[in-house]
Amino acid sequence: MIIVEPTRILLVEDDPNDAELIQLSFETYNFINQMDVVEDGEEALHYLLGKEGNPSPHPLPRLVLLDLKLPKLNGIQVLEAIRRHPRTRQLVVVVMTSSAEERDLEACYNLGVNSYIVKPLDFQQFVEVARQVGFYWMLLNQPPDLEF
Amino acid sequence: MIIVEPTRILLVEDDPNDAELIQLSFETYNFINQMDVVEDGEEALHYLLGKEGNPSPHPLPRLVLLDLKLPKLNGIQVLEAIRRHPRTRQLVVVVMTSSAEERDLEACYNLGVNSYIVKPLDFQQFVEVARQVGFYWMLLNQPPDLEF
Repeated sequence: MIIVEPTRILLVEDDPNDAELIQLSFETYNFINQMDVVEDGEEALHYLLGKEGNPSPHPLPRLVLLDLKLPKLNGIQVLEAIRRHPRTRQLVVVVMTSSAEERDLEACYNLGVNSYIVKPLDFQQFVEVARQVGFYWMLLNQPPDLEF
Repeated sequence: MIIVEPTRILLVEDDPNDAELIQLSFETYNFINQMDVVEDGEEALHYLLGKEGNPSPHPLPRLVLLDLKLPKLNGIQVLEAIRRHPRTRQLVVVVMTSSAEERDLEACYNLGVNSYIVKPLDFQQFVEVARQVGFYWMLLNQPPDLEF
């Protein structure tokens, strides 16, 4: 069994404003012990899978929030790597992106994304959607292989 | 492109009480045009994929709510068939079940379920969870390949 930490979230987001907004939205529900933020796709894979042959020092998060437009490796490449690796293939991955392009949607669903959220442009709506996403995945959804 | 009807839900549920509760919960949000209910796994696959070589007469639903303990074919077998077939492999499938058994969780996540919800035993909680599930998947999540 792979150990998942039930209160940990990995946010993969290169825009510091979006990252801060998502963190604030989640805090309003007070259900999070730790949100770790990484800013590019390569760092996300190092976080989840380790680096240069060394295993990751982090337990797996309950939820990965993944932007698509990212430096180094984009979100679709990150999702592909997550689904390919036995350690991470069952991870809950929610894409949060400004793109509603059909080819992005199709690529993500083909790779087995759990959910695809288009970030609203409006500030208030963005906060509300982020809150709902947090509520759903941290409180309602039963994650894989949890050890409480 | 496969045409998805953005307001249609397929509920696969053999317990008439649970089916009625889920329908009522969804109606309170008034966001549903049509919920179709089938009562066993075989019927679910006929609905989605057609029968005896004939294509399905139904457009694909935006969301499949899938119980696990079902007559004829169980929910895991239905999920497996959905993910295997090119017509349905991108469909959003949410398991709603009374089982929180690890082997069910693992099988569902391995087969690429979008979300796994354990039905609360308490009536009020059940209604509230069903409402939240409907809200999230019918209003927040961007489904695959939609044609509006």
